[in-house]
Amino acid sequence: MLGKYFDNVRKNVPLVHNITNYVTVNDVANVLLACGGSPIMSDEPEDVEDITSICGGLNINIGTLNKSSIEGMYRAGRKASQLGHVVLLDPVGAGASALRTDTAAGLMNEIRFTAIRGNISEIKTIALGSGTTKGVDADVADAVTEETLDQAVKFVKDLAEKTGSVIAVTGAIDLAADSERCFVIRNGHPEMGRITGTGCQLSGMMTAFLAASPEAKLEAAAAAICAMGLAGEIAWSRMQDGEGNSTYRNRIIDAIYNMDGAMLDKGAKYEVR
Amino acid sequence: MLGKYFDNVRKNVPLVHNITNYVTVNDVANVLLACGGSPIMSDEPEDVEDITSICGGLNINIGTLNKSSIEGMYRAGRKASQLGHVVLLDPVGAGASALRTDTAAGLMNEIRFTAIRGNISEIKTIALGSGTTKGVDADVADAVTEETLDQAVKFVKDLAEKTGSVIAVTGAIDLAADSERCFVIRNGHPEMGRITGTGCQLSGMMTAFLAASPEAKLEAAAAAICAMGLAGEIAWSRMQDGEGNSTYRNRIIDAIYNMDGAMLDKGAKYEVR
Amino acid sequence: MLGKYFDNVRKNVPLVHNITNYVTVNDVANVLLACGGSPIMSDEPEDVEDITSICGGLNINIGTLNKSSIEGMYRAGRKASQLGHVVLLDPVGAGASALRTDTAAGLMNEIRFTAIRGNISEIKTIALGSGTTKGVDADVADAVTEETLDQAVKFVKDLAEKTGSVIAVTGAIDLAADSERCFVIRNGHPEMGRITGTGCQLSGMMTAFLAASPEAKLEAAAAAICAMGLAGEIAWSRMQDGEGNSTYRNRIIDAIYNMDGAMLDKGAKYEVR
Repeated sequence: MLGKYFDNVRKNVPLVHNITNYVTVNDVANVLLACGGSPIMSDEPEDVEDITSICGGLNINIGTLNKSSIEGMYRAGRKASQLGHVVLLDPVGAGASALRTDTAAGLMNEIRFTAIRGNISEIKTIALGSGTTKGVDADVADAVTEETLDQAVKFVKDLAEKTGSVIAVTGAIDLAADSERCFVIRNGHPEMGRITGTGCQLSGMMTAFLAASPEAKLEAAAAAICAMGLAGEIAWSRMQDGEGNSTYRNRIIDAIYNMDGAMLDKGAKYEVR
Repeated sequence: MLGKYFDNVRKNVPLVHNITNYVTVNDVANVLLACGGSPIMSDEPEDVEDITSICGGLNINIGTLNKSSIEGMYRAGRKASQLGHVVLLDPVGAGASALRTDTAAGLMNEIRFTAIRGNISEIKTIALGSGTTKGVDADVADAVTEETLDQAVKFVKDLAEKTGSVIAVTGAIDLAADSERCFVIRNGHPEMGRITGTGCQLSGMMTAFLAASPEAKLEAAAAAICAMGLAGEIAWSRMQDGEGNSTYRNRIIDAIYNMDGAMLDKGAKYEVR
Repeated sequence: MLGKYFDNVRKNVPLVHNITNYVTVNDVANVLLACGGSPIMSDEPEDVEDITSICGGLNINIGTLNKSSIEGMYRAGRKASQLGHVVLLDPVGAGASALRTDTAAGLMNEIRFTAIRGNISEIKTIALGSGTTKGVDADVADAVTEETLDQAVKFVKDLAEKTGSVIAVTGAIDLAADSERCFVIRNGHPEMGRITGTGCQLSGMMTAFLAASPEAKLEAAAAAICAMGLAGEIAWSRMQDGEGNSTYRNRIIDAIYNMDGAMLDKGAKYEVR
């Protein structure tokens, strides 16, 4: 049962250092507060080592890079690793540009990530070292479906084995795997893709879940995915006539704010393969 | 009838590259998703050429500049022009500082913009090469009113002729012109000025409309303006007691999310001069 | 009675230059518009002097620093001081990293701030020149409570005397002091701490209040604090089942939008010590 990993966040109030894009950063901060964590943002190379030292986890998201923030990612990542903190990589847009692909690869060479979370196109890119991502959304050709599920499960387990990280792939069907087990998760709602940043929010939240339960990384990652998907379901059920993606965004964060472990246990839809 | 230019966005799902300010960037992303486009943000000079190459349009907004992002604007603008993509300039605050005025002028020297959208003070500044903009809002003295309308229509047509761009001026009365025709648009609500970023959102959306209908640039630009104004009207009609500008912001994006070509055809208020 | 300082903002529509973090910048802009001010954001060193010159106040918030924006803070702060504008410092995270502590101290050495606003841990850090802030939230050990209130009042008056600035400390009990008088304010709601950026929003709004009433700085600062706290109370009373921190954020800004001096006079809870 995954609920206790949510409750651990509320109990431990992990402080999460985020080096993340400026597009969705406010939502990342608010969802971290909603789930019971505490966010801090810093990307300046001369600031990040101090900041990450007082945190329990580091969330690196490459959604909007610049040379200074890339240097900040390396420094923060090394420091957090040395301190034994959980470190998550969200390779936004890997495959869409050489800089993004190379930055994700370079970070993976130097830092042992606790978890890597992205859409299937991004995760394929980092597995292969190159890709054809179209923007920040997954290619339709790559999508994880019931037909390609067995193959996808094997792919994420193999990548988890190779990297030593929990691998999380989110889409219509979500996967979270280490080298031996894969959670196949069917929470969520298709319209979540019409909001910017649900993936970024999940990465922030997953870092908090990992920091609060470092002894059960795979379960913590899976719990974060189920929580985000369940919030998408609850929020959608509360949508009223005339409401759209902007209100849906607020309602999803609100649903996380009102969630607890018992609700997550009741609403989580997953199997382990 | 302008509705089909909205439907074209939903049909073609244009990927829009935005180099835009960090104040309103989240709303720009969400309104692009709401109208049926797909947003990606990148301002790092070493990233922008790859990113803009996979997109259909480029939206350059100078609302918060730094030296690196200015270089990113030039590189992305040149690349997008070479590839024949639509490129839009939103000269936020041109006239309020030398850097903004000069950046707008410099970009216009090097890049042939498909469209330029701003408030009247900003557009006068780029027409004259200097200005007296007070912040990011238009000067009252510059306002387009029924009294100054003929003169304003001539001004935007002349500037369209001179620049080869569609010129869009938004305010109480909105104008969109090429050298021969000017759409005079009377959609919208005064309280839209009490929300940060409705102009930025429109620029993002207009880029998507232009990218989806490059064969009818003036109509596409006018359709985007009407859609934004109509969304402001619909959203205002849904406001409840005690609600203010933050909720109004959400309701406007929601209204775009729920809009289609038929609704736009019914609600658009314009004449062509 | 503090209501007139709110009304002065609506009357004078002060233009406020914000050099602030990219996490909460959109909310800062919207709350400034909600209270009757006008926001502009600029951090590029070559842009800030022009921009601050056309404004009535400058809000410096160190929530996300980079080398360029730090230089922008110095240049803008010096220019605004020369011009006699109000200048506010929000030392976000001072004590959490050397860079933040040093930047706050460096700015205080060069610029005479009209007001300094932070949580108690941040304000203790700038008073002592070092600190142990845990992230961007105040340490529990530092909290201003009924038991420590006398001591806290003395502390902020002494710091106001030493710096020549109005000192504002916000938390469960808020304080605003010059060297002689301290407003002890009991507006607000605990769940405001579950939203990112209510402090940043207050700093932006306080800058507008100071710019609109420079002849009564302490009262203007206290009025801004009461207004923000009262908005938190009103917004909380409007919360519906299933709503959480994201909606609460919108409702707080909405409450400011709908507030006026008379409402503030009625709802403000403070004593002067």
